[in-house]
Amino acid sequence: MNTYQYASISETKKTDAINVTLVSQLKEYVDRTVIMHGSVYKIRKMKGFSFLILRTARFCIQCVCDDQALLNELQEEACVRMVAEVVREERARLGIELHVKQITVLSGPSAQMPIVINGKVMETSLENKLDYRPLTLRNEKERAIFKIQEGIVRGFRSYLQENGFTEIHSPKIVYAGAEGGANIFRLDYFGREAYLAQSPQFYKQMMVGVFERVYEVGPIFRAEKHDTSRHLNEYTGMDFEMGYIDSFRDVMEMETGMLKAAVTELEREYGPELELLGVRLPHIREIPSLKFSEAKALITERTGRIFRESHDFEPEEERLLSEIVERETGSEFVFVTHYPAEKRPFYVMEDPENPGETLSFDLIFRGLEITTGGQRIHDYGMQLQKLCDRGMDPEAFESFLMMHRHGMPPHGGLGLGLERFTARLLGFENVRQACLFPRDINRLTP
Amino acid sequence: MNTYQYASISETKKTDAINVTLVSQLKEYVDRTVIMHGSVYKIRKMKGFSFLILRTARFCIQCVCDDQALLNELQEEACVRMVAEVVREERARLGIELHVKQITVLSGPSAQMPIVINGKVMETSLENKLDYRPLTLRNEKERAIFKIQEGIVRGFRSYLQENGFTEIHSPKIVYAGAEGGANIFRLDYFGREAYLAQSPQFYKQMMVGVFERVYEVGPIFRAEKHDTSRHLNEYTGMDFEMGYIDSFRDVMEMETGMLKAAVTELEREYGPELELLGVRLPHIREIPSLKFSEAKALITERTGRIFRESHDFEPEEERLLSEIVERETGSEFVFVTHYPAEKRPFYVMEDPENPGETLSFDLIFRGLEITTGGQRIHDYGMQLQKLCDRGMDPEAFESFLMMHRHGMPPHGGLGLGLERFTARLLGFENVRQACLFPRDINRLTP
Repeated sequence: MNTYQYASISETKKTDAINVTLVSQLKEYVDRTVIMHGSVYKIRKMKGFSFLILRTARFCIQCVCDDQALLNELQEEACVRMVAEVVREERARLGIELHVKQITVLSGPSAQMPIVINGKVMETSLENKLDYRPLTLRNEKERAIFKIQEGIVRGFRSYLQENGFTEIHSPKIVYAGAEGGANIFRLDYFGREAYLAQSPQFYKQMMVGVFERVYEVGPIFRAEKHDTSRHLNEYTGMDFEMGYIDSFRDVMEMETGMLKAAVTELEREYGPELELLGVRLPHIREIPSLKFSEAKALITERTGRIFRESHDFEPEEERLLSEIVERETGSEFVFVTHYPAEKRPFYVMEDPENPGETLSFDLIFRGLEITTGGQRIHDYGMQLQKLCDRGMDPEAFESFLMMHRHGMPPHGGLGLGLERFTARLLGFENVRQACLFPRDINRLTP
Repeated sequence: MNTYQYASISETKKTDAINVTLVSQLKEYVDRTVIMHGSVYKIRKMKGFSFLILRTARFCIQCVCDDQALLNELQEEACVRMVAEVVREERARLGIELHVKQITVLSGPSAQMPIVINGKVMETSLENKLDYRPLTLRNEKERAIFKIQEGIVRGFRSYLQENGFTEIHSPKIVYAGAEGGANIFRLDYFGREAYLAQSPQFYKQMMVGVFERVYEVGPIFRAEKHDTSRHLNEYTGMDFEMGYIDSFRDVMEMETGMLKAAVTELEREYGPELELLGVRLPHIREIPSLKFSEAKALITERTGRIFRESHDFEPEEERLLSEIVERETGSEFVFVTHYPAEKRPFYVMEDPENPGETLSFDLIFRGLEITTGGQRIHDYGMQLQKLCDRGMDPEAFESFLMMHRHGMPPHGGLGLGLERFTARLLGFENVRQACLFPRDINRLTP
């Protein structure tokens, strides 16, 4: 009766002699013949032979090829499979090179590259780099940026996991914005007005009532109309929120640990990329902290300059503060605490001893704010009052207030902008350089 | 001159005797006194004493309290800090219990619970559960669902990482939809029309040209107007894409490995939650695979039923197919391959030996499709032709075609719906049960 064959996958998968998928495995096969695949990143013709640089998943590997006929046909960016001998070669970056015996072209390009991607440095404008992102990311150094970015996220996640945080996935289509203001994207949701989440704020607070400690890595949407080197309209937020804190300083302490863990992860697993980009990692011990008002006074005292904006920092002030603190304490990070309540959202706790100042902080790293965090209001009456004081409609926040009404522990948390942190770590002036496919007021493609 | 104090965080953090944050650490302190915090999940009054169940970050722990005055004041869902002795107690679920010496209420609820959350089973409708999500997730079993979901994602990530995949973050505001059709959310992007990503398809393909193997865990937006137990308008996609495949079966093999890794991760790290929910994990060996046309014929042969839809499965067919395959092979998973081209998007590769059939697959698990994947078109001419054949405008896909034009390896990948997989794993009929804050055509809150 049973006339059907249930084919299992492995029956149909052919096995080759030594088929190597990852370059990191090659060192096990010195003096042996392997099959390796990748893209032809660069061909350098020498006398009687050529160097061919093969771009593989993570490393570019030097190959030596003396078949001139074959080389004449081969184009850069062709995808190939090669049979080659693994040879020890101390002068090569990986300590080995491949001696090519045979190349099969799996697919080739259909047109000339519109931009040179295989030079040592990509000498082109940022606009050009971004316009041709699917191609320019193939540059060895460009892609290394995002390998390092992966490492930051891994360090962040593993540290929080070890510290009892649960990972969550909160909705990005939301009924109300957490940050307020004009910078929110509107959406037609089956005839109703909805918004794109400005942060996972409400949801991570709700989840503190459930798991006590939660984190999320996900997209954040801000309809900022500024076109600056610091802003993206969509970025990756690394958010966490923790219950049963004694003070917002517990959150700062957790962030310090998390940043150390990220740096350690990079040192341990991403050495080749750090070297390729010449990254100088920060040494993080204890991060100094100043009150906002003190920081303002410090800047004025040290530089003699007075800035107009009194409730926040201007970008220039963040740069100056960073310089001063690094000079005087050696730290490239500085926490600024107790921001004025005027500039902070409605869920932020004010200092009971000094209302008007909030129990909140920013973290400034190499001259740029990369984190905002603090203690949140957990008491129902206090949160309700705050909404009313700000002329907001409590009914619009009913499911947010639900958690306060039925018991919430003292809690706080933060959001760290992944692209900003990456950019400062790698010394980029423009945050777009640390975003795969940036979105700004003028850019929606690629 | 320097009048400012750079306070370091740890100076301001007080240290207590044995301050335990995670219940898992408690076993180290049997017969000793600890400070522990959590929410009062349940109070059960006995003769002369009471059991108090403390809900902590991951576990509920039994506490014994004989201070009647204190108990009379204490409300369920109050957030407390207690001083207690750790006592071995074999009858308690964790093998230990706490004997309470002192309780401090950190914050209390302001109103009666509108719904009972601390019963053994939550006896209420799904609608009610979702309306009161910030509260109902505090139920021990409800939250265990999402702890298990975390484990699935962790297993998925670590398996892909081990196999040389790089994690990416692709934009969710996009210039064109990957899946086409009407189920796309539209957005006003500074006066231009933009969309919410129906999948990271274009971007993960582009990134195959960069890192060869990539994955992403992120939100997927589908403006489906169906209100069914299988659909969400926003869900979490676990996507990967890999280059240099010999066939789409390489993708199926990678998925098989990934699913095994997820199950192993759950067995190793999430035992308490699996036990609490009585989860029966599937045994995954090799996953049988059938062609779409064979599967159709098999269903008809075994059941005598003929279904009208000839280019896809109806939900009832997926259920029947699962039953048949499980009965005849023991597998709760089945791959269905070679779907008709009519129902597949424009980037899917057709079978050169049998055009009209695609080199694609779905994975059906316990009666529900949880994955769609397959081989993609990598050749520029073929992709251009396909767009034109379908009456689509190649100019609208310029940055997608850019990668094909300049060399792409044969590649394929898949998307796995996290909530669907979780729901089938836990035996839920409705996918909303496996989503923290579901979005559907009628639901935008909480």
